[in-house]
Amino acid sequence: MKTVGYAAHDSDAHMVPYHFERRDLRDNDVAIEILYSGVCHSDLHTVNGDWGDQPYPLVPGHEIVGRVTDTGKDVKNYEVGQHVAVGCMVDSCQECDKCHSHDEQYCRNGMTPTYGAPDRISGEITQGGYSKHIVVREEFVLRVPESLDLARTAPILCAGITTYSPLRNWGVKEGSRVGVVGLGGLGHMAVKLACAMGAEVTVISRSDKKEKEAQQSGAKGILVSTDEDAMKNAAFSFDIIIDTVPVKHNVDTYTPLLDVDGTLVIVGQVGPLEEPMTVPLVMGRRSVAGSLIGGIKETQEVLDFCAEHGIHPECKMISPDQVNEAFEHLANGDVAHRFVMDMSKLELEAD
Amino acid sequence: MKTVGYAAHDSDAHMVPYHFERRDLRDNDVAIEILYSGVCHSDLHTVNGDWGDQPYPLVPGHEIVGRVTDTGKDVKNYEVGQHVAVGCMVDSCQECDKCHSHDEQYCRNGMTPTYGAPDRISGEITQGGYSKHIVVREEFVLRVPESLDLARTAPILCAGITTYSPLRNWGVKEGSRVGVVGLGGLGHMAVKLACAMGAEVTVISRSDKKEKEAQQSGAKGILVSTDEDAMKNAAFSFDIIIDTVPVKHNVDTYTPLLDVDGTLVIVGQVGPLEEPMTVPLVMGRRSVAGSLIGGIKETQEVLDFCAEHGIHPECKMISPDQVNEAFEHLANGDVAHRFVMDMSKLELEAD
Repeated sequence: MKTVGYAAHDSDAHMVPYHFERRDLRDNDVAIEILYSGVCHSDLHTVNGDWGDQPYPLVPGHEIVGRVTDTGKDVKNYEVGQHVAVGCMVDSCQECDKCHSHDEQYCRNGMTPTYGAPDRISGEITQGGYSKHIVVREEFVLRVPESLDLARTAPILCAGITTYSPLRNWGVKEGSRVGVVGLGGLGHMAVKLACAMGAEVTVISRSDKKEKEAQQSGAKGILVSTDEDAMKNAAFSFDIIIDTVPVKHNVDTYTPLLDVDGTLVIVGQVGPLEEPMTVPLVMGRRSVAGSLIGGIKETQEVLDFCAEHGIHPECKMISPDQVNEAFEHLANGDVAHRFVMDMSKLELEAD
Repeated sequence: MKTVGYAAHDSDAHMVPYHFERRDLRDNDVAIEILYSGVCHSDLHTVNGDWGDQPYPLVPGHEIVGRVTDTGKDVKNYEVGQHVAVGCMVDSCQECDKCHSHDEQYCRNGMTPTYGAPDRISGEITQGGYSKHIVVREEFVLRVPESLDLARTAPILCAGITTYSPLRNWGVKEGSRVGVVGLGGLGHMAVKLACAMGAEVTVISRSDKKEKEAQQSGAKGILVSTDEDAMKNAAFSFDIIIDTVPVKHNVDTYTPLLDVDGTLVIVGQVGPLEEPMTVPLVMGRRSVAGSLIGGIKETQEVLDFCAEHGIHPECKMISPDQVNEAFEHLANGDVAHRFVMDMSKLELEAD
């Protein structure tokens, strides 16, 4: 199938229109016309080569919402016209203990990311959601519940699941005290999801300039991390902190805020942290952990959870030709929402 | 009560005989003649001033085994002649949620360490177990089970509980895969305790020179951390790693060895770690945690557990006047056992 998208051709992260082929449908494949595609900070990091060399040209995008246009003959759960979604993975071995326990993101044989990795069968490089169409095996396609606004659903596929999974894994429930460091794409979803779980949520930020956004997302307020007195008073006051900071930083700022047995979960930074002190860990049996997206079952769960609780990410709609501008904003860290591309604006040229 | 001990008079950590008074018995106090006193690396750090200024003269020691010589009128559970022990704490508020849940080490109002801190009632500075006698409130006195060899029991009070508590807290059981970094006082107890819990235990060390000691303690062998191939092959192979390294180090050496959802627990280093990478944490939902000794109930539990399983720390008996030599060995890190002072060698001079 011919399609068109936006690709980076080298590590300058400059995105330009790119015509390419999607594979012919395998028996268990679903063909999808992409309607909306979220722009994730990790797309920028990846095409930049920050996380290693990439196979250019590369079409990023792993927050994908669309409509089924065709199905392979063995596909059981999807039919043409249905609204569906695709997240950060498009395949895994389906045979190991982690795949069997619905943790495909930790597949023993390595999950296949939505873009930039060899397909398990053909070996061709996967290409992501900044495009008009995608073909994905059934097991990695998700249902979009009817009550979700399609245009504001895409970020649930990465920002949503990346924060939902650790909130669930570390047992957040009614009355849990949740801190969220940073109020960008990940952070604002963490706030909304934790609030819907019944938690008391505080945003931890270097200034109070996002206080309004924090409260609109449901947080009770902002704890300003440069206010020494406020930070001292907040010691031992969180059960879990979701740390969305996407750059090198010092977790010692936050670990003393955790109660005994509390956990700080890193979901933003991929790289080094500054030298941490062991004292806050030892003196409170605290943990610093990491978490990677979530499994397919759990990704369906967060879509259903958002539908049930009326949660939508804060989205700013753009057309695909504005993606380079969106990247600039992400690099500057000046957004408290997610950019979502309206892929209907992307025209597939006639042959 | 007049007594004698070994004290540091300033931060050069040089220990000299010191005559001082123990408090008169309060109604809930137990007076103890100390028979054996373990020498912990943390004693050296403390008297050195590595962890902050100290109130000199200071008598360290928090691995104490002795015999009851007197009891206050309200003491219910101890009688003269009974063998008892005292560990790292001698008091806590007894009123907060952590005291109520048997986690006195994390007392909201601060537990009172066995030496170097103000007594909660009189304000006088507590003095530890490098002495002939000690007076401790009943709630912080432990029973020594009859089947334990008194001379080899003291290190259970710190090295034992410090490793037992995280093994229990993180659910080590039959078949758990446990790594132990370092085979000193803490490490060799971690090996023995984890083996008795039914775990498969591997010592992780910079060389294989302690292989014999590791196997004698029950470990299946040594994983040499400088052997890149061996380390690569051991990725994802531990449920928990007890990290006893008492100096600044890089946990990135060990975190990739943890399986998904595994935890590295720091029990040795009090201070900074080298810059850690988030990737091993994020890519396996792994945690780096800390743990501080254990509660009083759990300390009794580890004494009983050691009695039940015939576990004794590897002890090298010394007389109190050899304590400065013992400190030198600890500073050099060249011991796979615990020095224990035979306090009967310490004579209280006549007036």
